[in-house]
Amino acid sequence: MHFLSDNTAAVHPAIMEAMAAANAGHAPAYGADGLTEEAEKALELLFETDVRGFLVCSGTAANALALSAMTPPYGGILCHEEAHINVDECGAPEFFTGAKLIPLPGEGGKLTPEVVRARLERFAHGEHQVKPAVLSISNPTEMGRVYTPQEVRALARVAHAHGMLLHVDGARFANAVAALGCHPDELAGRAGVDVLSLGATKNGAMLAEAVLFFNTALAVEFARRRKRAGQLVSKSCYLAAQWLAWLRDERWRELAEHANAMARLLAARLDDVPGVEIAEPVETNMVFAWLPRTLHVALVEAGAEYYCWREEQERVQARLVCSWQTREQEIESFITAARQHAG
Amino acid sequence: MHFLSDNTAAVHPAIMEAMAAANAGHAPAYGADGLTEEAEKALELLFETDVRGFLVCSGTAANALALSAMTPPYGGILCHEEAHINVDECGAPEFFTGAKLIPLPGEGGKLTPEVVRARLERFAHGEHQVKPAVLSISNPTEMGRVYTPQEVRALARVAHAHGMLLHVDGARFANAVAALGCHPDELAGRAGVDVLSLGATKNGAMLAEAVLFFNTALAVEFARRRKRAGQLVSKSCYLAAQWLAWLRDERWRELAEHANAMARLLAARLDDVPGVEIAEPVETNMVFAWLPRTLHVALVEAGAEYYCWREEQERVQARLVCSWQTREQEIESFITAARQHAG
Amino acid sequence: MHFLSDNTAAVHPAIMEAMAAANAGHAPAYGADGLTEEAEKALELLFETDVRGFLVCSGTAANALALSAMTPPYGGILCHEEAHINVDECGAPEFFTGAKLIPLPGEGGKLTPEVVRARLERFAHGEHQVKPAVLSISNPTEMGRVYTPQEVRALARVAHAHGMLLHVDGARFANAVAALGCHPDELAGRAGVDVLSLGATKNGAMLAEAVLFFNTALAVEFARRRKRAGQLVSKSCYLAAQWLAWLRDERWRELAEHANAMARLLAARLDDVPGVEIAEPVETNMVFAWLPRTLHVALVEAGAEYYCWREEQERVQARLVCSWQTREQEIESFITAARQHAG
Amino acid sequence: MHFLSDNTAAVHPAIMEAMAAANAGHAPAYGADGLTEEAEKALELLFETDVRGFLVCSGTAANALALSAMTPPYGGILCHEEAHINVDECGAPEFFTGAKLIPLPGEGGKLTPEVVRARLERFAHGEHQVKPAVLSISNPTEMGRVYTPQEVRALARVAHAHGMLLHVDGARFANAVAALGCHPDELAGRAGVDVLSLGATKNGAMLAEAVLFFNTALAVEFARRRKRAGQLVSKSCYLAAQWLAWLRDERWRELAEHANAMARLLAARLDDVPGVEIAEPVETNMVFAWLPRTLHVALVEAGAEYYCWREEQERVQARLVCSWQTREQEIESFITAARQHAG
Repeated sequence: MHFLSDNTAAVHPAIMEAMAAANAGHAPAYGADGLTEEAEKALELLFETDVRGFLVCSGTAANALALSAMTPPYGGILCHEEAHINVDECGAPEFFTGAKLIPLPGEGGKLTPEVVRARLERFAHGEHQVKPAVLSISNPTEMGRVYTPQEVRALARVAHAHGMLLHVDGARFANAVAALGCHPDELAGRAGVDVLSLGATKNGAMLAEAVLFFNTALAVEFARRRKRAGQLVSKSCYLAAQWLAWLRDERWRELAEHANAMARLLAARLDDVPGVEIAEPVETNMVFAWLPRTLHVALVEAGAEYYCWREEQERVQARLVCSWQTREQEIESFITAARQHAG
Repeated sequence: MHFLSDNTAAVHPAIMEAMAAANAGHAPAYGADGLTEEAEKALELLFETDVRGFLVCSGTAANALALSAMTPPYGGILCHEEAHINVDECGAPEFFTGAKLIPLPGEGGKLTPEVVRARLERFAHGEHQVKPAVLSISNPTEMGRVYTPQEVRALARVAHAHGMLLHVDGARFANAVAALGCHPDELAGRAGVDVLSLGATKNGAMLAEAVLFFNTALAVEFARRRKRAGQLVSKSCYLAAQWLAWLRDERWRELAEHANAMARLLAARLDDVPGVEIAEPVETNMVFAWLPRTLHVALVEAGAEYYCWREEQERVQARLVCSWQTREQEIESFITAARQHAG
Repeated sequence: MHFLSDNTAAVHPAIMEAMAAANAGHAPAYGADGLTEEAEKALELLFETDVRGFLVCSGTAANALALSAMTPPYGGILCHEEAHINVDECGAPEFFTGAKLIPLPGEGGKLTPEVVRARLERFAHGEHQVKPAVLSISNPTEMGRVYTPQEVRALARVAHAHGMLLHVDGARFANAVAALGCHPDELAGRAGVDVLSLGATKNGAMLAEAVLFFNTALAVEFARRRKRAGQLVSKSCYLAAQWLAWLRDERWRELAEHANAMARLLAARLDDVPGVEIAEPVETNMVFAWLPRTLHVALVEAGAEYYCWREEQERVQARLVCSWQTREQEIESFITAARQHAG
Repeated sequence: MHFLSDNTAAVHPAIMEAMAAANAGHAPAYGADGLTEEAEKALELLFETDVRGFLVCSGTAANALALSAMTPPYGGILCHEEAHINVDECGAPEFFTGAKLIPLPGEGGKLTPEVVRARLERFAHGEHQVKPAVLSISNPTEMGRVYTPQEVRALARVAHAHGMLLHVDGARFANAVAALGCHPDELAGRAGVDVLSLGATKNGAMLAEAVLFFNTALAVEFARRRKRAGQLVSKSCYLAAQWLAWLRDERWRELAEHANAMARLLAARLDDVPGVEIAEPVETNMVFAWLPRTLHVALVEAGAEYYCWREEQERVQARLVCSWQTREQEIESFITAARQHAG
């Protein structure tokens, strides 16, 4: 009954095998090997557009480095107040950019053009204020909600109209694409996204995060930024092997679809449990549900693992995350336990 | 004939197997898994002292993060002018610390107490100058030279007497320990080292770098520094598995001894080639040799791979690095080619 | 009819004379002159406690430098969302500290212990979040509101109970002290304030800002921080001369009392103008008033100068600031103009 | 007998009077006043070219801010190893830029095209090294030596040929111009200088430093950089008044010529004192002289004030600085004392 996060899942066997297969002979270091080049090309093929990809070591690094190429140090980064970059990266974006994060409200972790525009109107003090430089959104959001291509485009328009760039934190990007059944580039370059932090780690890989520049002019000297941040690994071929296996035959979509399907199933079954209330529309692989505190305590005792997103006196909002590894049986065990302790 | 670097070598099979073996079930993310704890404990056992270890993603990150815990932003970091932190990390130490690097000269990449003391005397302008905060040395140095325990202790004494801390860049630390046949802690805690950047990647691992605090007070809140730098990986167990396999039964020593032995053999054989001059005492796994330019050109054409450390009109100083993977046969092929084109 | 800001006022003649009087012979540079020492001592006498003072060049520098001595780079600075450090310093606090600002709501620019405590409860993710390190308040606030000694003490208690420090932005500190008629230290050291940014520029000086450490342990090496920030001026005696004249015979209180009295008068008179609504209690030298847009346009045309704090379709919230230089006659002219165009 | 520095001199009476004259009525804050505009225009007139000037509070800030507009954070700043930015600014350049300083040797504090070119050849590791971005020289140097227009142009050519920019630390720029009897722009825009830190403080002003952009494209958003660094003062008109008085009727040249002449006189007279050796050609307002230690001790006891640049067992290298305020009588007293104690 593991619903803690999708990054507690194991590495998909095909990805592990690809790493083992890469382990032969010598490979030039620091990305000059053939596999890294292949992986960068494969990312271009995935999006079917001119995109410059850089492999890095963590999602936090992908976000912070991406942002550092998008804003001057006197810039401002508008983002949702619950955004991972604002809440859970220990100030990495401020560290890498020198810039200021400006948190905005919004339902389900989503920003709207109206909220962004209203905030921009408050930048009227010239040099006394930072220069709004980046709009950063998470797709899907930290609540598992999805921005459609239209929604991304609308935000890109607002950003660009104000001389800003659009960044997408895509730690679970595959889940969004799978949920919408669209082409990946419909949520990226074609929607006006300038830079995407793309994560594969939460979707079956071991250590596979990348910064993708759809606005390729921003990629100039990014190699130096990556090195300066300690994010250039010497044995890059093992990162590349993961990406190649993840991208091959749209494995990423298959894994993400499974995780999404499991979350839908979990939500549907949970919704029937007395006293439980689904708190957010389930659009990708996460379920947010209010549980009576007594039920919560019983479930934890029964061995269920999940994250408490919010706590109130009488109830707890649980975040239940499904992964490529989640099995229907786990969900049924969880539901059985829930039913047993509910009411 | 691969002598480019020890980071172009493959991953040792036992380490790759350990990673595959770790790939089962779920593992709490961000280092809360059992393997990471085991690896941290194994590092303590290695040094047989109270040491706090943190796994990170690259040697550059290990150095820059270590230094960030050792100096205030208004501090100075004394290091050799050829130190990796000063030459080949694209300013990462300045980025992570905010401090100033102060390069010093020294034969073979080594610093002496005299050189350090003489430089410290020039800090007499009070607040107009940075505060000397860290002495950083590489052991072995970038030229493969080794500091003995006595030499490290002497530098530690100078540093501590001036209110400074001692950092060691140990990207090839195993090679130094193997060369001296000593206990690892004789070059670390017992010698007065405050923080060690320990690398396993160049010695058979895939992605295994660590920051080790012998001065454990400095480790307070280091977890936040690591996170803020994007160096905390979610699936930490796969880094830990590498460390455990590398540490088991002193495999690290065996691999390093092999690399060192290969370098000694290479140097001995090269020394006999007419026109070749060994440029540095060979103390670990690197050979620096002056080659006539004509010989250099012929060797490269013949497929030999190595790095040109320095270039002059008539000759080239080659840096030839041996690794755990270097075979005697490779050395013989190289020597045969050299003899063929020499004179 | 100048109500734009108190920093548009001239320098008080006595302060200008003191600067001229200081202009004789030679003076050791960088604060080693006698006047700087005298000024630092005079600041101690003002507060009648052990306080370490450092002269700097701007209020923004005073705030950002003060904060840099109070938080590690992985720290968080809690402040009001309308705080000058959050809104009008172009990211200087992030630049100087490397840390993260965390904006909080509150009426009149004031924070309450409840709001602070509630926000602190959300720091439960360990290393994934910044470490709450500083609580920063403005006294008076950007809306001219005052924290009483009791209120400051209550906030200090919350901060200290959570391992945080308390910073006060006192750009208009004299106005708060004058308004309360208290001893300056009742709003500083005795109230638990660790560091105060004290400004004299808005209250009759030319260029006189200081960082005052009541928690003197934090002042260690602050001289280097100031120098590294380009805030150590060579001819420091001319800054010191301003402070000495400002402090002599409680001139600061007299000037602040005048400015406060003028604001009270202005508010009282404005309140009688039809259609005008005083928007904030007037506690120091600022008046916030809603003006019908037609009235606003007419006043500006008539030559009145003030800042538009907020704008709505039909009305404008004017910020009217009085200074040591404001004359009753100016207020009467303004009221006459307002009456003429009102209704 | 004050030869400690030119920043221990008083403010020239005409400059002090100009500040007092500026003290009337109200002035818009933050540089929106008329005087600041006039001063910026006067700086343009001085150089007779299109130049964008920004007033700041210290020479260190002028240098560090100028550099921050000239290099990306992954850049390198080449400078003399004795440069003020490398030695006496407590790391401010690293702080403001995030970049790396690369110290170079050179006689008299001067760099040559050969030394610069030779160092640039060592940047061959791509992303592993910082990108050489700025060449920074001091004119005059920290030893009072002057770069001629031809020398500056030659360095500008090297810099620009390598995609770098040329910065000049002109803390004593007037002394260099006066020494050469040239037009100021011959050492600035016309010589290929991109950005000049211009100081008036050491030449009769109170607090007057500026950043001048001859490469005006670099000035974009510099206002925000200045604000973010806490270098925008509210009552800017008092800085502007100093500049206007300093620039009027070439007062700067007259004051600098006097200081230079006094230094020439001092050197000529000192040279005749037995046992004294002039250590550097005297080109501006500084004299470097080796004094026997016994003489040095006697002079200090007699009340002479100067800085010990270097110390040896038997002798001391004194730095004697003349200013606009130095009188012939002071020099004669010093020489008399020297003669008395020499031999």
